Amino acid sequence: MLLEKLREIVWKCNLELPKNDLVRMTSGNISGRDPQTGLVVIKPSGYSYEEMMPADMVVVDMDGKVVEGHLKPSVDTETHLYVYAHRPDVLGIGHTHSPYASSFAVLGRPIPPCLTASAMLGGEIPLGKYVPIGGAAIGAEIVAKIGHARAIIMQNHGVFTIGASPKQAAKMAVEVEEIAKITHLAMLMGQPIVLTQAQLDQMDDLYTNLYGQK
Amino acid sequence: MLLEKLREIVWKCNLELPKNDLVRMTSGNISGRDPQTGLVVIKPSGYSYEEMMPADMVVVDMDGKVVEGHLKPSVDTETHLYVYAHRPDVLGIGHTHSPYASSFAVLGRPIPPCLTASAMLGGEIPLGKYVPIGGAAIGAEIVAKIGHARAIIMQNHGVFTIGASPKQAAKMAVEVEEIAKITHLAMLMGQPIVLTQAQLDQMDDLYTNLYGQK
Amino acid sequence: MLLEKLREIVWKCNLELPKNDLVRMTSGNISGRDPQTGLVVIKPSGYSYEEMMPADMVVVDMDGKVVEGHLKPSVDTETHLYVYAHRPDVLGIGHTHSPYASSFAVLGRPIPPCLTASAMLGGEIPLGKYVPIGGAAIGAEIVAKIGHARAIIMQNHGVFTIGASPKQAAKMAVEVEEIAKITHLAMLMGQPIVLTQAQLDQMDDLYTNLYGQK
Amino acid sequence: MLLEKLREIVWKCNLELPKNDLVRMTSGNISGRDPQTGLVVIKPSGYSYEEMMPADMVVVDMDGKVVEGHLKPSVDTETHLYVYAHRPDVLGIGHTHSPYASSFAVLGRPIPPCLTASAMLGGEIPLGKYVPIGGAAIGAEIVAKIGHARAIIMQNHGVFTIGASPKQAAKMAVEVEEIAKITHLAMLMGQPIVLTQAQLDQMDDLYTNLYGQK
Repeated sequence: MLLEKLREIVWKCNLELPKNDLVRMTSGNISGRDPQTGLVVIKPSGYSYEEMMPADMVVVDMDGKVVEGHLKPSVDTETHLYVYAHRPDVLGIGHTHSPYASSFAVLGRPIPPCLTASAMLGGEIPLGKYVPIGGAAIGAEIVAKIGHARAIIMQNHGVFTIGASPKQAAKMAVEVEEIAKITHLAMLMGQPIVLTQAQLDQMDDLYTNLYGQK
Repeated sequence: MLLEKLREIVWKCNLELPKNDLVRMTSGNISGRDPQTGLVVIKPSGYSYEEMMPADMVVVDMDGKVVEGHLKPSVDTETHLYVYAHRPDVLGIGHTHSPYASSFAVLGRPIPPCLTASAMLGGEIPLGKYVPIGGAAIGAEIVAKIGHARAIIMQNHGVFTIGASPKQAAKMAVEVEEIAKITHLAMLMGQPIVLTQAQLDQMDDLYTNLYGQK
Repeated sequence: MLLEKLREIVWKCNLELPKNDLVRMTSGNISGRDPQTGLVVIKPSGYSYEEMMPADMVVVDMDGKVVEGHLKPSVDTETHLYVYAHRPDVLGIGHTHSPYASSFAVLGRPIPPCLTASAMLGGEIPLGKYVPIGGAAIGAEIVAKIGHARAIIMQNHGVFTIGASPKQAAKMAVEVEEIAKITHLAMLMGQPIVLTQAQLDQMDDLYTNLYGQK
Repeated sequence: MLLEKLREIVWKCNLELPKNDLVRMTSGNISGRDPQTGLVVIKPSGYSYEEMMPADMVVVDMDGKVVEGHLKPSVDTETHLYVYAHRPDVLGIGHTHSPYASSFAVLGRPIPPCLTASAMLGGEIPLGKYVPIGGAAIGAEIVAKIGHARAIIMQNHGVFTIGASPKQAAKMAVEVEEIAKITHLAMLMGQPIVLTQAQLDQMDDLYTNLYGQK
């Protein structure tokens, strides 16, 4: 079987989505790109997380052709591929309709950086305009607007995250919802205090250079 | 035993309700109609989800007579039967008091379509007026107001969903709460951006023709 | 061992509290009264729900004397006993700090009856004034204000529920939080539509005479 | 192995954080100080709660030198050590970004004492000003502002708790989020009723002298 290790990683990262209450039923997905072959492993379309196994992951090439797999890939596949094609640094992509982040999507608003943890996501979480699900156009909007952030709110839709691995893309999907929730709760009571770029840079340095085990 | 397969499906679909935090204690129910015999399988009244087994499901005919089963059917049975009688396309019905959707019920407001996922429910989730629980009258209000939507908010009460199968009715119960939650959260912060009918139609096409495995 | 069956029931009803997210750590309790002996079984004070077993339940008489049990009874015992002494119809009492209901307690407000399910609790959930935890005085305030309702909000504190059994008291603790949540969510968006007494009476009749299996 | 018992306690207390939904992914931590040796046991940096075992806990001395352990200690270690050095009464420290409490952090507001349970935390939960994560400076701000409270909100960041044991620090982390949630929900609907110092003192007496089993 092709990319056996990556399939298992992508499968496991997909399972993080229901485990962290970011998705309901079959919605959402995580993909991963193999840096050697350039092939992408992605969740099958509309497939139950509970029943899904590593062998159900779909392997596609950069043209969207299914290279291996017995199932149809996610309807978001073309979107993922566009992002991979234009962002060589990205090896993992995530997508959810997680509720607090999606409430910003309904209003067409970015999420201001009000928490030390916001530095992990690159500060403000930008907004992409409304683009219908399922094509390269939404990928183009992500690439145009995400900049150095690791997540983007897509208007009337949900969240996309990017990372140097599928695991990081999944982690960013968790973090963006947590930050969206705290910021939302604060905005209901008053005016959030937004961190300065210097404060965010200092925290980014901590998360990049000191945090974790490496 | 009559309709053994449908009993098991209806039982399993009922279990989706507590699993997705849509019901507490014994509230809520899912039913399914057998297209061959016209018989309906429904949850027993006030029965614990934890203790419930497929054999506890109640089989009723279209007049509400218990055809098979050792328990009393749901107090909502007459309501389900009215909907089945007037909507030949419906083979599954769901009912919950899920909290975010029910908050719209308390205000007597429909849920505006502000998310791509709203297309799955047919766009706006309409409002039915207050009708006491338990009779054909509430079924008549559902039939009168639900139109092409797959869910309806019943004032001061909760949610009813319909589908081409019990599984779809259960899925719609999950989706309506998710959409209600995101829309509610957005409405607390500002003015939601409502999707146009053309945008919803385009997404409906995607969910109908591309999404999932069929 | 005294009242072995009632201990087990009270223990199981206490476990419903964490299971339904109504309590954190060791807070909250359920008690039950034995109609024959008049003895009361109650949760031990500040005791972990996870480690608690039926044998850890404390049996007290109506003067608060521990009749059987190796642990100290809840600090709310005197309160429960006062209610039992003045309400012969009550055989089960529950107490939680469940968050949505307690938010009404912080504001000193009753919960208006805006849902068909409110009929199960007797309509409006009344408010008791602030009384310090742990004595007969809080029991007296409950008895003075609860009337025909099955739950009461105690200002700056939490919720007490009553029932014809410990099981019903636990169920009411679940229902009051569900109703508080839905009503709270509605109040944040607009003006709730309150049910009339006639509408509540009709629903009370349904819950009393038709709902469930008996 | 050094401090085998304390490692196990600190490990178990750390697991209370995800269990009570106070942390996501690897964020948050609990530490404990051994009163005999003065050594501190703390969670490893950026480490998964699920994979973490007692042997993964890191033992540091009061200068922050790793005395035993195969992993890097939390980036918050210096902060914990500063608090231990200046508060001999403290033998356990907790840290989370729990969402309701953190919403107060985003606004730079203390949490007013509106619940009998607030007495457990020492009344009002004070606010510390913004200080970057990871050094003694944040410890100094905690020591300067926490006073007789058992928790503090750190602006734009999250919560720190203190206790006479790691277990108490973990319990305070649970309580502060519960109180923050109830108070937040109340503040969205109206003006919270704040308890007087005399009312809080009376409840503090109950929690200190009557509550629990000792």
